[in-house]
Amino acid sequence: MNALNVAEYTHTLGSQAKAASALMAKAPAAVKNKALRALARLLREHTAALQDDNARDLERARAAGLAEPMVDRLKLTPKVLETCAEGCEQLAAMADVIGEIIGMKQQPSGIRVGQMRVPIGVFGMIYESRPNVTIEAASLSIKSGNACILRGGSEAIDSNKALARLVQLALAEAGLPEDAVQLVQTTDREAVGQLIAMPQFVDVIIPRGGKGLIERISRDAKVPVIKHLDGNCHTYVDAPCDVAMAVKVADNAKTQKYSPCNASEGLLVARGVAAEFLPLIGAVYAAKGVEMRVCPESRALLAPVAGAKLVDATEQDWSEEYLAPIISIKLVEGVDEAIAHINHYSSHHTDAILTTDHVHAQRFLREVDSASVMVNASTRFADGFEYGLGAEIGISTDKFHARGPVGIEGLTSLKYVVLGEGEVRG
Amino acid sequence: MNALNVAEYTHTLGSQAKAASALMAKAPAAVKNKALRALARLLREHTAALQDDNARDLERARAAGLAEPMVDRLKLTPKVLETCAEGCEQLAAMADVIGEIIGMKQQPSGIRVGQMRVPIGVFGMIYESRPNVTIEAASLSIKSGNACILRGGSEAIDSNKALARLVQLALAEAGLPEDAVQLVQTTDREAVGQLIAMPQFVDVIIPRGGKGLIERISRDAKVPVIKHLDGNCHTYVDAPCDVAMAVKVADNAKTQKYSPCNASEGLLVARGVAAEFLPLIGAVYAAKGVEMRVCPESRALLAPVAGAKLVDATEQDWSEEYLAPIISIKLVEGVDEAIAHINHYSSHHTDAILTTDHVHAQRFLREVDSASVMVNASTRFADGFEYGLGAEIGISTDKFHARGPVGIEGLTSLKYVVLGEGEVRG
Repeated sequence: MNALNVAEYTHTLGSQAKAASALMAKAPAAVKNKALRALARLLREHTAALQDDNARDLERARAAGLAEPMVDRLKLTPKVLETCAEGCEQLAAMADVIGEIIGMKQQPSGIRVGQMRVPIGVFGMIYESRPNVTIEAASLSIKSGNACILRGGSEAIDSNKALARLVQLALAEAGLPEDAVQLVQTTDREAVGQLIAMPQFVDVIIPRGGKGLIERISRDAKVPVIKHLDGNCHTYVDAPCDVAMAVKVADNAKTQKYSPCNASEGLLVARGVAAEFLPLIGAVYAAKGVEMRVCPESRALLAPVAGAKLVDATEQDWSEEYLAPIISIKLVEGVDEAIAHINHYSSHHTDAILTTDHVHAQRFLREVDSASVMVNASTRFADGFEYGLGAEIGISTDKFHARGPVGIEGLTSLKYVVLGEGEVRG
Repeated sequence: MNALNVAEYTHTLGSQAKAASALMAKAPAAVKNKALRALARLLREHTAALQDDNARDLERARAAGLAEPMVDRLKLTPKVLETCAEGCEQLAAMADVIGEIIGMKQQPSGIRVGQMRVPIGVFGMIYESRPNVTIEAASLSIKSGNACILRGGSEAIDSNKALARLVQLALAEAGLPEDAVQLVQTTDREAVGQLIAMPQFVDVIIPRGGKGLIERISRDAKVPVIKHLDGNCHTYVDAPCDVAMAVKVADNAKTQKYSPCNASEGLLVARGVAAEFLPLIGAVYAAKGVEMRVCPESRALLAPVAGAKLVDATEQDWSEEYLAPIISIKLVEGVDEAIAHINHYSSHHTDAILTTDHVHAQRFLREVDSASVMVNASTRFADGFEYGLGAEIGISTDKFHARGPVGIEGLTSLKYVVLGEGEVRG
């Protein structure tokens, strides 16, 4: 396709999505759930065929010299497909939030005013690599009564096309418009530029991928973007605290998994508890091979720990998202300095305080300006499933509209509903 | 100021606002209310001085040949100032929503997860003409725990400066940072361009003014915009309906006031009720001098009405926001055609159905894609005060974040709060 054709093609997708969104918005819950269960069944019935389609992507990736861990992320194994199918069934079993009316109150004029939850309309999703995102996005879109346009990575195009075909079969089986979930069929990069600049058709863009991709999309988009940038998360060990618990939580927050955005990258420790706490956590990190980027005071307390990998922290370390067995460690005077440090250096994703002091806990919750603030829990919990949202389309580090893990409600908006009996304005 | 100086100046405002916002976010409700009551007192104490400052704006406006209705909008009469003072006191008397925690639920892991309402941070407000907006925006900003940067029109600069000085005195009296409310002191247009492009300092922009201003700001802003474009509102008279009520409501929706955005600009009438209803409403409109832009069928029914000003409607009329004694009138088959017409031509602001049919009412509420949908009430009710929001910073015709009248909650966001007892992720 040339640029003109791509623009025309993307506009056609947009106009079809817009038309489908009106039908999706009024679809009864039972019909949307029927489509989700049909999709689960189709994914199981077509597991072998999907693997054949997936094999072409894998072959191309290997031929292009992609590293094996990257090839792994592309794989549609029977286990991955079963997880997708179960996800669809879980969504089908969840209550439908569309149409719920909240806060209906009578006003002095006599009218009753409330808000009805409705789908946002059409969302565009731009993602890389893992083709199972196609099913996650499609199923969330169906459940939330939206239409969506999906643009996966070129490396997964054959898998994504096969998956999207099944989604459209499931929609048709339930009597819903196939255009409710459309995959961009071209790998031309121009399609992304078009997709993010059609406010007449697309209500919000959700990018998932590297920071470069997300920054580029945020800069160029002509519609709102639900974006997730860095996860520079902190665990602050307060004085007083339960030191044994603090060791367990600070360990989990860093080492349970290194790559997720909700892993802690910075450890702040109150001076009053540092002499007791630091050698204990230092020994845990040393045993797991976690490198510690330390301030001078914490170096002094950690130096005696056998096998500790200590590196002097630079200013840059306080802002760093390592996603690796590395953690920065800094001593602070107390909760004031901890809050100030976090509000300055954190990426406003997730930050936790470990404390037994009620006032410190309340101040931390109120004053730390992050999407998730925690008391006595591992930052690793910042996740749509752990929060009970049932599903997650992404995590927002913005304050506008959706903040933190974004589930079905993040794909909805509230419109005002006014019920009268012939009232007029005086 | 030259462009460079304006950029530097605006950045200084931004950085000061950002610093002040952290203090405002943690200010206790009593302290914010103290500032609001101090502001009310200061407005009353300085009424004479404020009128002197205002007189300079009025003089300049008259010298520039501004029409007297426009000059009127600039006036800070004792009545206008008293209304401002009362508004501050009403806000002070309202419950504080900042810090409220909603939906706290225990999850299978043991953690409890809820959401805390927090200020959005810093908002920028760009407005024209009426200087009392300075007090409305400042008082809402204080109550909601935000900081704001206000950019009024050059025609009201002396009044705005005087009002902003009082706001800062009130903040200081309560022990709050004066930078929590800053007025852009230069009338240089470059300052607007800067203000809307500082995502590091400003979280959201709220423009109030003509459509041209709002479109320009939406196009160029690098931060989210809460925008209100047209108000092409509809009243649909269904069959069956209470015809006497329909006449009363359709009259009020059009004629109670012609200039507001929530006045009805289009009247749709079901064929089944048109022969009875149209001559009645036609006589009302004729008596009030309202011009009717009619489809051929409604012309036939309205032609016998004495004094009716009938004009054949063009395609353009269905999209028009008249803000004048003009209304478009079209016959439709029923609720399906009404919904389709509205979703096609409406500006998604406010649309009402007048009906006695329960199913029609429910379908209209669910399927009309507008910020406010009403049953048996005048579209003129679409307003923050009438909805019980206590105050209104603007009306949003967007779906993202805030939709419809925007009160204090529209200036807040929800962050996740997680309370644990040492839980870790498995």
